[in-house]
Amino acid sequence: MLSRVFLPIVIFWFSISTFSLAQNSSPYDTLARKIVTTGLQSGKAYTMLTELCTTIGHRLSGSPQAAQAVAWGKNKMNEMGLENVRLESLMVPHWVRGEVEEAFVIHPVTKEKISLSICALGGSIRTPAEGITAEIIEVHTFEELQSLGEKAKGKIIFFNRPMERSKIMTFEAYGGAVNQRGSGAIEAAKAGGVAALVRSMTTAVDDFPHTGSMGYVDTVKKVPSAAISTLDANFLSELLSKEKNVKLHLQLSCETLPEVPSANVIGEILGSEKPNEIVLIGGHLDSWDKGQGAHDDGAGISHTLEAMRLLKELGLRPKRTIRAILFMNEENGLRGGKNYAEKHKNETHVAAIETDAGGASPRGFGVSTDSIRFEKIKRWESLFEIIDADRIKKGGGGADISELGRQGIPTIGLRVDPQRYFDYHHSDNDTIDKVNERELELGATALAILVYLLAEEGL
Amino acid sequence: MLSRVFLPIVIFWFSISTFSLAQNSSPYDTLARKIVTTGLQSGKAYTMLTELCTTIGHRLSGSPQAAQAVAWGKNKMNEMGLENVRLESLMVPHWVRGEVEEAFVIHPVTKEKISLSICALGGSIRTPAEGITAEIIEVHTFEELQSLGEKAKGKIIFFNRPMERSKIMTFEAYGGAVNQRGSGAIEAAKAGGVAALVRSMTTAVDDFPHTGSMGYVDTVKKVPSAAISTLDANFLSELLSKEKNVKLHLQLSCETLPEVPSANVIGEILGSEKPNEIVLIGGHLDSWDKGQGAHDDGAGISHTLEAMRLLKELGLRPKRTIRAILFMNEENGLRGGKNYAEKHKNETHVAAIETDAGGASPRGFGVSTDSIRFEKIKRWESLFEIIDADRIKKGGGGADISELGRQGIPTIGLRVDPQRYFDYHHSDNDTIDKVNERELELGATALAILVYLLAEEGL
Repeated sequence: MLSRVFLPIVIFWFSISTFSLAQNSSPYDTLARKIVTTGLQSGKAYTMLTELCTTIGHRLSGSPQAAQAVAWGKNKMNEMGLENVRLESLMVPHWVRGEVEEAFVIHPVTKEKISLSICALGGSIRTPAEGITAEIIEVHTFEELQSLGEKAKGKIIFFNRPMERSKIMTFEAYGGAVNQRGSGAIEAAKAGGVAALVRSMTTAVDDFPHTGSMGYVDTVKKVPSAAISTLDANFLSELLSKEKNVKLHLQLSCETLPEVPSANVIGEILGSEKPNEIVLIGGHLDSWDKGQGAHDDGAGISHTLEAMRLLKELGLRPKRTIRAILFMNEENGLRGGKNYAEKHKNETHVAAIETDAGGASPRGFGVSTDSIRFEKIKRWESLFEIIDADRIKKGGGGADISELGRQGIPTIGLRVDPQRYFDYHHSDNDTIDKVNERELELGATALAILVYLLAEEGL
Repeated sequence: MLSRVFLPIVIFWFSISTFSLAQNSSPYDTLARKIVTTGLQSGKAYTMLTELCTTIGHRLSGSPQAAQAVAWGKNKMNEMGLENVRLESLMVPHWVRGEVEEAFVIHPVTKEKISLSICALGGSIRTPAEGITAEIIEVHTFEELQSLGEKAKGKIIFFNRPMERSKIMTFEAYGGAVNQRGSGAIEAAKAGGVAALVRSMTTAVDDFPHTGSMGYVDTVKKVPSAAISTLDANFLSELLSKEKNVKLHLQLSCETLPEVPSANVIGEILGSEKPNEIVLIGGHLDSWDKGQGAHDDGAGISHTLEAMRLLKELGLRPKRTIRAILFMNEENGLRGGKNYAEKHKNETHVAAIETDAGGASPRGFGVSTDSIRFEKIKRWESLFEIIDADRIKKGGGGADISELGRQGIPTIGLRVDPQRYFDYHHSDNDTIDKVNERELELGATALAILVYLLAEEGL
């Protein structure tokens, strides 16, 4: 007998697909479908991202790789025939990790040295060459730290509040924990601590430390600050619950060098009727100096370039200008976003879209604007139903376009499935093999559709 | 200055989340939220799946691992306090891959032997011990094969029609290509071919061959049939476009042994008011003998067990009985589904739900029933909006519950993001590291909510 066990599930999915196809409700449906099928059939987002990740790799502002990425991005824009391809120069911070990065605890009973998986947080000062060795003390909030009083003095402060697993939106969980990374060193120093060690910002429990930006204020002593993997944070917490006077040795050789020149990369599809009205789309070209910056934000760069390439391939030139920007220095300074907003403040921007939430399947868009414009965009929802990306929600944008938002320009962020993002974010785990080709291409098609609609219809 | 570059994106996501929270529109909202937060906070789906994948591994019907999986599943149900935990015995096919599995082409010019990444398709006969060496000929459809006439005689037939990349739903692309795997050996033999070599059913281009069920008919000679990785299929196709008389050597030692006893694993939460009305939920416990059967269908097994565990943990006992089934032998015989449907045909089933589309983020459900029942389920959509799984669409179920569907029972399939599934499906690549913990737990919560609603409200 012919085995037909595979047939039922196929038939069900056919029905689902047919059902979706029947929902045509807008004259743009054919266009949207054309963009999606072209992207899935012959999209180049994944090819471009692979090139960026494997021939250049991570690309922190000021690094040689960041300079290579600028040249690469400009070349891509030229290759696909964008107009007005150019670099807009700006200065960026130049922090380097250095050669030495290690930490170990000394077991108070066995005197054994136990290595911990750590990395310096971006912007941290170095330790003295011989490192810092001090007793470690665990806290979960700044209030808890302040309540320690004298007990915190001379200690390494271990901030160990996890991202809340129960939050559905991982970005919300991130928001609930990231002040430890951003301000941990300041709070540690205020309490008399000698360094800050921060639980990595991730929902995963593994051995990767996750870096990210941290800051100092002029009025408080600067102390070094590092991230520890979640596995080792759990280990350390357990050790501290059992033993007293646990000492930790921390050695970092990172430093901040003089600022260096860099650039935003810009290219356009000029509008056929209203070329002075601009729809902006972009992601950020820089990454942290870990992994390959594949999801953060190589994905957004390849989304942006591919959305433009798709429109070019399909010969689509809308009424208004679409301007693609590969922003520099989102991660540790936001110079690209600030520079662009200042330089172009007298131009007419219809809207600004950013893609900086990774390369997973698109779910829709978050939109920050007034209710009339929001409703106009929301009426396009059904066009995105074919790719399950038809969730237009209130509130959206991205760090690079936040300054444009403050100027009153509507800002939009691509929403993708957020569950895996923080597994990779700012760590050696953020590599090309963590990005699925089809999911990435679908994100680019969603952006191509939206940017075309905005440039054709206005807002 | 304190670096605040991480703040904008956090704020946008907060807004999105708040917007979602404001959509409360049903008395079940609190319950749904409780299930989701519990699942994300302390769910056990990923732990159970890890156990199944790493302590047992793949578990083809009839194998020792399949027997271990039956015992494991029963034990899990007992541990979580399900009622009426039992095995329902049945006989299953017993096909084994054997030790030898190889293929190479002999380059017609250089005479070099070039190894190909292949594996026997499930159900195939073996080759003679010395293998089959014959000229290979490429086709894309059965019609093309038939049109070859005499030219196909004595050849190895290479079916190389890819899954269509442009299809948004990968299951639809699978449906458009899988007849080559299911019936390729029959069609090859009808044309006078000596073996069938089939391009792996996957949207990825990589070096993993993907197995899967194939069949024979009594009236046509049986010839061996194997899958070839997509990378090697592309290589072979290119070679054939350049060279004539390319010979391929194929050696398989697989065979079908006598049937062996196995079982479906069943456990229940008895209804408080109408215990004789049953809402069924299940996945399949068997897998192909490749990888660990993590997505297919370890994910469905852990979804099913975790949905039950969540209801138990939260002390939820609805009016009707919820019956969980770990079906045996979905992959190559469907004996579990058929056995259950026959044995329980006189019971009252409210609905049957299957989860067999992998462990990615849930998107909603496909439902096959009349329009009144469909609309009733569709009215629950908003309860799933908090996890972006509120797409109730027409057409759904699963192979194991297809026989119940033919009896007129409403069938429902969990819809998850389908883009990555066929990268792993039936290959050595289907391992636990390809499953994201949070995505898997979210699938279990979606099922827990739906199964509770159906058992409490009826249909």
